[in-house]
Amino acid sequence: MAELDVATQPKTRENDPAAAELEAGCRDLAARVKKASRAMALAGGAAKNAWLAASASALVARASEILEANARDVAAAPSLGLNAAAVDRLTLNTKRIGEMARSLTEIAAQADPIGEVVRSGRRPNGLEVTQVRVPLGVIFMIYESRPNVTVDAAAICVKSGNAAILRGGKEALHSNRALHRILADELARCGLPEHAVELVTTTDRAAVGHLLALPEFIDLAIPRGGESLIRRVVAEAKMPVMKHYQGICAVYVDQAADPEIATRIIVNAKAQRPGVCNAAETLLVHRAIAPTWLPKAAEALAAAGVELRGDAEAKAIVPSMTAATAEDWDTEFLDKILAVKVVDSIDDAIAHIGRHGSSHTETIVTRDLAAARKFVAEIDSSAVIVNASTRFNDGGQLGLGAEIGISTDKYHARGPCGLNELTSTKWIVYGDGQIRE
Amino acid sequence: MAELDVATQPKTRENDPAAAELEAGCRDLAARVKKASRAMALAGGAAKNAWLAASASALVARASEILEANARDVAAAPSLGLNAAAVDRLTLNTKRIGEMARSLTEIAAQADPIGEVVRSGRRPNGLEVTQVRVPLGVIFMIYESRPNVTVDAAAICVKSGNAAILRGGKEALHSNRALHRILADELARCGLPEHAVELVTTTDRAAVGHLLALPEFIDLAIPRGGESLIRRVVAEAKMPVMKHYQGICAVYVDQAADPEIATRIIVNAKAQRPGVCNAAETLLVHRAIAPTWLPKAAEALAAAGVELRGDAEAKAIVPSMTAATAEDWDTEFLDKILAVKVVDSIDDAIAHIGRHGSSHTETIVTRDLAAARKFVAEIDSSAVIVNASTRFNDGGQLGLGAEIGISTDKYHARGPCGLNELTSTKWIVYGDGQIRE
Repeated sequence: MAELDVATQPKTRENDPAAAELEAGCRDLAARVKKASRAMALAGGAAKNAWLAASASALVARASEILEANARDVAAAPSLGLNAAAVDRLTLNTKRIGEMARSLTEIAAQADPIGEVVRSGRRPNGLEVTQVRVPLGVIFMIYESRPNVTVDAAAICVKSGNAAILRGGKEALHSNRALHRILADELARCGLPEHAVELVTTTDRAAVGHLLALPEFIDLAIPRGGESLIRRVVAEAKMPVMKHYQGICAVYVDQAADPEIATRIIVNAKAQRPGVCNAAETLLVHRAIAPTWLPKAAEALAAAGVELRGDAEAKAIVPSMTAATAEDWDTEFLDKILAVKVVDSIDDAIAHIGRHGSSHTETIVTRDLAAARKFVAEIDSSAVIVNASTRFNDGGQLGLGAEIGISTDKYHARGPCGLNELTSTKWIVYGDGQIRE
Repeated sequence: MAELDVATQPKTRENDPAAAELEAGCRDLAARVKKASRAMALAGGAAKNAWLAASASALVARASEILEANARDVAAAPSLGLNAAAVDRLTLNTKRIGEMARSLTEIAAQADPIGEVVRSGRRPNGLEVTQVRVPLGVIFMIYESRPNVTVDAAAICVKSGNAAILRGGKEALHSNRALHRILADELARCGLPEHAVELVTTTDRAAVGHLLALPEFIDLAIPRGGESLIRRVVAEAKMPVMKHYQGICAVYVDQAADPEIATRIIVNAKAQRPGVCNAAETLLVHRAIAPTWLPKAAEALAAAGVELRGDAEAKAIVPSMTAATAEDWDTEFLDKILAVKVVDSIDDAIAHIGRHGSSHTETIVTRDLAAARKFVAEIDSSAVIVNASTRFNDGGQLGLGAEIGISTDKYHARGPCGLNELTSTKWIVYGDGQIRE
């Protein structure tokens, strides 16, 4: 995803007129979207839903345009070095276009967060005070190859009353342009500002750096992609960044675990979709249950194609395991590989997670109420799960509806981020002449 | 407040062993408080309230210790160049110590935010999901001369389940040490971690820079003081910063204003306490009401000791005004000075506020419902007030209880920040073996 890299030494006006032009262009774009964001903040739910519905229809009606553009991206993919999995993620077809349209329809069906009263009261002096939900403003999404992110991100931003600047990967540029053209065509028709959703179409990677330097126009940056992309965005951004770096998620199988449930959960958490952030990377097994449970679990995991990397004690129980190295405990494999460790106690498991985890998602499997409560209280992760797969840390699964990403930060929003997490609040006070005494 | 300046070129290990020692000391301090924060997150409300009550009693019982330390600060104040107002803010007496103790008692009476369920549901697959409030972790307060901030900040942080690093001004160091000693003595007695509240006692200004570089230990920085202090903290902090730079608050007197109410509000907003962030700096008057209302308002403001700086039209109505300069519209006077402008319409007033305001607090005075609704919808400030003084943008006045500061940012918290604003959330999920399909 080299084309998404943020230039660490952007060219400057002084030494390069083309660079100065790019910087000015980024500034103009961001200023345009900021201006549109003020109208978006006042847009009613009807206009936003009308746009979502119209865009859903237009995606289907103009599918041939999208497929034609996508074919150009797919044809160029080998020359950009994309492997088969990446080409598959990039490729669109009628079914996938239908899924994008359905996603728009689902977002339209969610409640409009804007204007919701989150706190209110009447003060002793008669002031009526309310704290209401308002949009953040302009959201800058930086993402990688899946073109559906263009549609989903635009939809979530617009539904939450925000404007959006979208920057996808170079390998999906034609697809993203076609999708963006369709979404943008519908904006003005539905009475929304035409610049409420803009796509960055230059492939010059310095553009991302220029945009990240404009906190006066952009209120939030959301990078979605590999850890190095996210670290660069955090390093350069002058505005807040909604993100997680890694998902090193653990499943702890307690001495009081139901063995069947433990096996079902670890197989699902590891193997159902190993390339995502809420997949498990680490299995911690209580010493008391390891000799009986681990061999069966290893068999089920092997049947699912998972490679096990165990510490000495785990390997003593299941000799077919590879020996885990020190760095395996700190690695997000994003693959069918699982690090396995035998622990002495729930305290050991909690300490291991504190040292090596990424505060994303952890599961305990247990029938013991005290163990469940202790794990839930002491684990400091965005989601702590008892007797279910780590894969449930997801906006849809937790009932938030559409999700723009998962945050492991504590400031602003933590866990899956949906519509509410793209909003702020303002206080509104009605009086009849009150003054401070 | 030079001693609070963040060193822009901190000394480094390479060129100065004393600097290396300071840096290591800051790191040790922050690590110690981070460790204490984990126990604080699990502390029950009873222990936190017991500490607040015990500290309130101890402040009164040990008043002579505090007054003795404070006398040393007051004696040294002239040599530090403090003016009379600053010496007054610094000076403690029995009454002020009683007020600090009462503040602790009031914070004890507030609801404990930790563990509050902010969202919950049962998912179609039987998962029980809850999102609960958890502390942020370690909060670093950087503040200026009032010693009561030491007590208030410690109390708000502890009540919200956080640990705190406090860094007050050099001019209040002896007072802050005495106050901190009393608070710290009560921590262990109440079963709370002894390092949950630490005071930075070195006067080396590089210490602030070192601490701001430790996001692994400090979760939030809160600077309270002049704009230059805040800008330096924002520039150096590697963690989020809760802050506002300025309070350039406006009162707009609409053509449909009640003239009596308008006068009462502008006098209060400007003159009741001119040195605070929610005092008004700008008066915008609709052209239709200016000729009749402005002379009376000017008289009342003059009687309150306020200097008026008007645009040409305002000055034509009230010739005794000084002529406003361009920069007066962008200045937080923090004094009995008010910039006055006649506007053509509510749209002009909103546009002026958009260009010159600081998104802190704006008031409209009107009897016209449509004007009130328009102002409330279109003004993008942390508090928008109808027919009441700007001075009501305050945690106590809005019903939040104690306030640690006012944020004009949209990310995380906006407006007065109380206990809830010093918390995050985590998702807790209980299942009985659910996996993702």
